[in-house]
Amino acid sequence: MSSLPLGDTFHVFDTTLRDGAQREGITYSVTDKLAVARLLDGLGVGFIEGGWPGAMPKDTEFFARARAELDLRHAKLVAFGATRRPNTRVDEDPQVKALLDANTDVITLVAKSDRRHVELALRTDEAENRAMVRDTVRYLVDHGRRVFVDAEHFFDGYAHDPDCALGVLESAVDGGADVVVLCDTNGGQLPLGLAETVEQVISRTGFRVGIHCQDDTSCAVANTVAAVQAGATHVQCTANGYGERAGNADLFAVVGNLVTKLGLPVLPTESLAELTRVSHALAEIANIAPHTHQAYVGASAFAHKAGLHASAIKVDPELYNHIDPDTVGNGMRVLVTEMAGRASLELKGREFGIDLARRPEAVTNAVRKVKELEARGWSFEAADASLELLLRQELSELDEAPFVLESYRVLLDRRSDGEIVSEATVKVHVAGERVIETAEGNGPVHALDAALRKALLPHLSWLDSVELSDYKVRILAEAPGTDAVTRVLVESTDGEREWTTVGVHGNIVEASWLALCDALVHKAMRVRALV
Amino acid sequence: MSSLPLGDTFHVFDTTLRDGAQREGITYSVTDKLAVARLLDGLGVGFIEGGWPGAMPKDTEFFARARAELDLRHAKLVAFGATRRPNTRVDEDPQVKALLDANTDVITLVAKSDRRHVELALRTDEAENRAMVRDTVRYLVDHGRRVFVDAEHFFDGYAHDPDCALGVLESAVDGGADVVVLCDTNGGQLPLGLAETVEQVISRTGFRVGIHCQDDTSCAVANTVAAVQAGATHVQCTANGYGERAGNADLFAVVGNLVTKLGLPVLPTESLAELTRVSHALAEIANIAPHTHQAYVGASAFAHKAGLHASAIKVDPELYNHIDPDTVGNGMRVLVTEMAGRASLELKGREFGIDLARRPEAVTNAVRKVKELEARGWSFEAADASLELLLRQELSELDEAPFVLESYRVLLDRRSDGEIVSEATVKVHVAGERVIETAEGNGPVHALDAALRKALLPHLSWLDSVELSDYKVRILAEAPGTDAVTRVLVESTDGEREWTTVGVHGNIVEASWLALCDALVHKAMRVRALV
Repeated sequence: MSSLPLGDTFHVFDTTLRDGAQREGITYSVTDKLAVARLLDGLGVGFIEGGWPGAMPKDTEFFARARAELDLRHAKLVAFGATRRPNTRVDEDPQVKALLDANTDVITLVAKSDRRHVELALRTDEAENRAMVRDTVRYLVDHGRRVFVDAEHFFDGYAHDPDCALGVLESAVDGGADVVVLCDTNGGQLPLGLAETVEQVISRTGFRVGIHCQDDTSCAVANTVAAVQAGATHVQCTANGYGERAGNADLFAVVGNLVTKLGLPVLPTESLAELTRVSHALAEIANIAPHTHQAYVGASAFAHKAGLHASAIKVDPELYNHIDPDTVGNGMRVLVTEMAGRASLELKGREFGIDLARRPEAVTNAVRKVKELEARGWSFEAADASLELLLRQELSELDEAPFVLESYRVLLDRRSDGEIVSEATVKVHVAGERVIETAEGNGPVHALDAALRKALLPHLSWLDSVELSDYKVRILAEAPGTDAVTRVLVESTDGEREWTTVGVHGNIVEASWLALCDALVHKAMRVRALV
Repeated sequence: MSSLPLGDTFHVFDTTLRDGAQREGITYSVTDKLAVARLLDGLGVGFIEGGWPGAMPKDTEFFARARAELDLRHAKLVAFGATRRPNTRVDEDPQVKALLDANTDVITLVAKSDRRHVELALRTDEAENRAMVRDTVRYLVDHGRRVFVDAEHFFDGYAHDPDCALGVLESAVDGGADVVVLCDTNGGQLPLGLAETVEQVISRTGFRVGIHCQDDTSCAVANTVAAVQAGATHVQCTANGYGERAGNADLFAVVGNLVTKLGLPVLPTESLAELTRVSHALAEIANIAPHTHQAYVGASAFAHKAGLHASAIKVDPELYNHIDPDTVGNGMRVLVTEMAGRASLELKGREFGIDLARRPEAVTNAVRKVKELEARGWSFEAADASLELLLRQELSELDEAPFVLESYRVLLDRRSDGEIVSEATVKVHVAGERVIETAEGNGPVHALDAALRKALLPHLSWLDSVELSDYKVRILAEAPGTDAVTRVLVESTDGEREWTTVGVHGNIVEASWLALCDALVHKAMRVRALV
């Protein structure tokens, strides 16, 4: 495998921010979209489709902010939009104008290529549809844009009326389009048939062909790869396969397959080991739990449970893995739960700079404690700082707590004029003094955080730099009849470092309090280690 | 499509209970296994592989109980096991004896077909490996069993040393095996290459060939279907694709594709509409949340979010679905989101039994209001009841509110002994009276809910049947420096019906309050409609 990516001869075109945002449950803020674009650019994809300016106010804002705030190293930003309306002038179409206003180098235009859709949805005829495509492409090209055309419903359209479908591709290229993208919009294709169609289209037209697949037959990744084998040189994917209905072709599986199975260096070599990390980070931004069994990047993708396999794995891990998990930044796990408990804690200890190998009894106690807490709803997977505190406590390495709580009280008042006041009072002991402070906030937890800071800041000057940067709540449903439990994750930052702590309780405010306290105790520990 | 299933000419072979049980997180009890077998049999699969008797005590028990308790209508139960050990007599191998003791009509034997595995894992040579396969098959056939042979690591083995791999198949058939199953054990195959190999094997041997795929390239379903197109007449799948690492080929997607795309009636016709129900029931038994975006059977598999698509769906639903969702017992849903336009709201209105077609100005206002609210963090995708209230409000169809809030106050006290008290007071106007009530709860929202019920129940008797059945919280991070917003989803039930409402606010308690109020207002609306 060459270490050079294929440049413009092969396009990895990501549409997480446009088509991927159609997934049920995803709502990106503009800030989220900028963060997604940065991660994708870091991976080295060639194109990032950012949205549909004009149609969605949020996307218009995204492109405006992207110009000012994004400094992309690899990717070109792409605006998505439709061709002009039937029987209108392209230079008078506000949607087309919004596309130009997005000010991207590249524009993707969606064009109908199934005659039934032209007639039933667009309510126009084939000739006008072709004119709409040609006019709009030419207009955008004349304004200095590179244009790709998404031929919507191409495969269904080609099966129904091949000449009409090919005619739309011709109009696109005639207008100056660079790539025509064959879209399996309804996702009904299977790989062998799809590959045959792609081959036919290329041999009949000679055009540069791209592929865009939906996962309704659970074949989106396979269809995308089959299209490449049939000659497509532009693949449209979304991170983790997010998309409407069953989703789109998963970027990570497509890239994994193209690089490791077909030997196509479609991303910079060093990016491959980033796939797992970026996949999980993008899930975090989308606020969707990562799919544990996802190919290549899932937490279970290289996890072995079978006793049959375990002995063979010991002989040679390659015998039972289709690739070396390190290639994609993932790791192999053998699921022998009790052993894995000790082993993973020891590994974790190494990360924290704690040598647990010589303290077997402390590890035993810590494993037991972690298991007890996890049975009650705690989770340390994403809360390293709380886990470190737990480990150091077992090793009796923790100094005296920086403060001790006596009590707190939170008052929430929704008055008859609709005004809401949240107020908290804390009573704490810090630096030998008993301190009582009250503060307001925009919610109960915010008020509690404010009161605690007010009480501690005169005594703990380092607190000034510490901020709560993220706050996540999950309600853990219990068996019917029992009370639900709330798990709170708090992410803190001191401007240099970020750390995450966890709290679990039946009461959301107390769960938040526990996580807040861990955050401050962890910072205090670091401060002491430095002085 | 014929209404007759293909009988023995095509095998749908399910291995949910054997290979599927290798999925991380699944532990079936014997009772679970019996329930899974009943559901699969009801679907009409031809074979149910129940486990590995002898190797797993639970599986030995399963086969014993299955004989007594299962009354299978369609499926044959299959026991799975290995060939005899190297350099031993087959009639002295306890594992082979356990296979006979399971007393099934059919046995699947796993055989190594990759020379490297024969040498490194089995530590024997090619000739002895072939003898192990032939001897064991013949012994079981002589004892009246039908035998299938799983050729483990077949595709890797065939690529590495085709003669060795084919030799193992020959020994199996020589011993009397009925079907040789080509296994992509490490899951590294892609459809075009796999189909070519299957074709070669069939043309070189003439054997009856089956296929077993793992999902490590995200192509298990595509590979299975491609193998059938290449001549395989036996497919091994698991429910929902459960299995080791990234999983196996999903039974529901494979069957959906074979029946609706290739026109192969591999299950009884009436079974197809059961796919969705059975998939969810099997997820329930496995104690795994159903995968919402699963092809064919996922809750989102026919959910449409895009406004662009929704307008076309109104014209003809077939334009935007690859199949009629009813075919597989699923349903179409239109998701109302910021991307949605008039068309999705009108479709949604139809679901609620509201005719919006004659009220265009109300639709315009509702679309604007939905977009405004979504821009502030609301989401109606999962909160149909709140959306219905919004629509009816725009149509001025809502009666007077069942109650009006004056104010509420929530007090949370964490005392110095660690005890936490949550208490809420509400002041509301209901049935012409002003009512003040106070109640405690295990958290601020629970206390508020309790106080509201206490205030309303004497006046609204229907409230007695209404319960909060689920409560979800999401913190929506905004740009740094701005305040985060909290979105709360509340699911309510009255024992007959469930409905979901949403509330959004900077303060989590107020967000919860808004969702709680919508839940009660929605119920009141239903109650009035009935009287």
